[in-house]
Amino acid sequence: MKKFSIGIDVGGTNTAIGVVDENGNVLTKGGIDTPSHGDIDRYIKDMAKAVRDMIKSVQLTNSEAEIIGVGIGAPNGNYYNGTIEYAPNLSFKGVVHLVDLLKKEFPEYKDIALTNDANAAAIGEKIYGGAQKMDNFVMFTLGTGVGSGIVVDGDLVYGNDGFAGECGHTTLIPGGRLCGCGAKGHLEAYTSAPGMKRTAFEIMARDNAVDSALADKSFTELTSKMIYDAAIQGDKVAVEVFEQTGKYLGQALADTVHHLAPEAIFLFGGPTAAGDLIFKPVKESMEEYLLPIFKNKIKILPSELSMGDAAIVGASALVWKEKEK
Amino acid sequence: MKKFSIGIDVGGTNTAIGVVDENGNVLTKGGIDTPSHGDIDRYIKDMAKAVRDMIKSVQLTNSEAEIIGVGIGAPNGNYYNGTIEYAPNLSFKGVVHLVDLLKKEFPEYKDIALTNDANAAAIGEKIYGGAQKMDNFVMFTLGTGVGSGIVVDGDLVYGNDGFAGECGHTTLIPGGRLCGCGAKGHLEAYTSAPGMKRTAFEIMARDNAVDSALADKSFTELTSKMIYDAAIQGDKVAVEVFEQTGKYLGQALADTVHHLAPEAIFLFGGPTAAGDLIFKPVKESMEEYLLPIFKNKIKILPSELSMGDAAIVGASALVWKEKEK
Repeated sequence: MKKFSIGIDVGGTNTAIGVVDENGNVLTKGGIDTPSHGDIDRYIKDMAKAVRDMIKSVQLTNSEAEIIGVGIGAPNGNYYNGTIEYAPNLSFKGVVHLVDLLKKEFPEYKDIALTNDANAAAIGEKIYGGAQKMDNFVMFTLGTGVGSGIVVDGDLVYGNDGFAGECGHTTLIPGGRLCGCGAKGHLEAYTSAPGMKRTAFEIMARDNAVDSALADKSFTELTSKMIYDAAIQGDKVAVEVFEQTGKYLGQALADTVHHLAPEAIFLFGGPTAAGDLIFKPVKESMEEYLLPIFKNKIKILPSELSMGDAAIVGASALVWKEKEK
Repeated sequence: MKKFSIGIDVGGTNTAIGVVDENGNVLTKGGIDTPSHGDIDRYIKDMAKAVRDMIKSVQLTNSEAEIIGVGIGAPNGNYYNGTIEYAPNLSFKGVVHLVDLLKKEFPEYKDIALTNDANAAAIGEKIYGGAQKMDNFVMFTLGTGVGSGIVVDGDLVYGNDGFAGECGHTTLIPGGRLCGCGAKGHLEAYTSAPGMKRTAFEIMARDNAVDSALADKSFTELTSKMIYDAAIQGDKVAVEVFEQTGKYLGQALADTVHHLAPEAIFLFGGPTAAGDLIFKPVKESMEEYLLPIFKNKIKILPSELSMGDAAIVGASALVWKEKEK
């Protein structure tokens, strides 16, 4: 009997679904639209059908395949309640009891669990990735937002209400940039993809950088991918964006270290592909803010989850984690 | 058989020792000098003698008394190793194996454990105080420094190396006030007793506050107690010090909430006696920085440990916590 789990990643426009083995290999994957209509029942039917088709296709090539459960990563996902709660980028209103609804579709699976995407990535790192031998580490995900997942003594920290690990909303600069959440100066406003864009425009404005490769893009047009490409080509503004982003992040990571004293902090997401361009300033800046007892002790590591499949793989890891309990 | 534990609090100049019952009542207490001579063996002999004398006196009045262990709170205390490591305010150099040394003196006690003072206070709150029914909370101690102890799922977070919970050294204002640890802008430089003094002098300088009750004190003379007394009398500068200290602390507490989503944050230490003068700005400021999902959810509570005995009581609680394992 070979065991597999289903990983589902609920995104703003697309819901990715995959069948994952115990080593984190994705056997097959696909997806459905995350609806804009807000009709949760129809969404669940679509999801259940896609999952069943996928299981069938796996069982065609592997008659021994046993599916042991379903793991879901979702924005504002609440592990304790199995709910998505007031997710600003989804069309569903209020609290969606996704796990209960899926359990009705799949009564045969005991383990159906849900958490937010960054928590899922942290569990993915623990089950399949670079944190397999670590009991205390933190995962930071850099993307449209900045997410985090905290592991203490081998288990994910969910906190009192299931929402722990929102380090993207710690304050980096009091009274600073407006954050998407409405507060000012949060980390996410500086080190997310839109945050990097804002930094690029600040630098161009400061230096009147008409020669930069980024100078002919409007505020709407400029993407973090363009900044990345320009940085790799040595564009001065783009390189400074990565350096400054690293400094910002390093300051925040020091705060996380002072809370949790982790063995390592993993970074996941597009900007990490820039390697030293981002990791070097992150490390230097973090060290600057650390207490002597923590200096030169905390590893900053790139996630070992493969970029394309990480969301599915992370979500599927939830199931193996449930099995441990 | 009535059970008691010994609580020892290692301070910069004095080491307090007490015998504590299962409800956190201190039966008897005393102390020895924390030596300035750096001779650890002599210190251990003094400590062991004081503990033995204390146990004898308890057993005189209570022949049924059974001592079940020794808990120690100490600066830079490392729970995993039972050590005090590079404590800047103690005369002992490097790493002191305090638990091992005490075990040689008291082979009859299985449970001898050590952690830092703020962690001990957090365990004290859990075992005897306001957190008895809470599994996720954080303790902040406001004194000469700013310490913290983090409880997740009922257990104290020690992190990878035993030093977790140093929230006093998270960055409040990047590039801000010089902290005792050498870094800039740490919380401790703003909300410790010396931090409050610095705030008082900033306000007096800004307002040319010659009429303030604090105006005739030198920088060396002014204490946080004087600021407290003046604030209670309605002195404008002193009241603003509390308000500003509350704002600073609230910002930092929001960061802690975004990490850990605790049920409550407990505040311990002198300034908490000012009640609303400090709690109100703390709450308002924290709420301002919080994500909507956390707003109006997190309790900010005064510690229920009695100020005078908290260090001993907290340390003694370590023993009952060990017994649970």
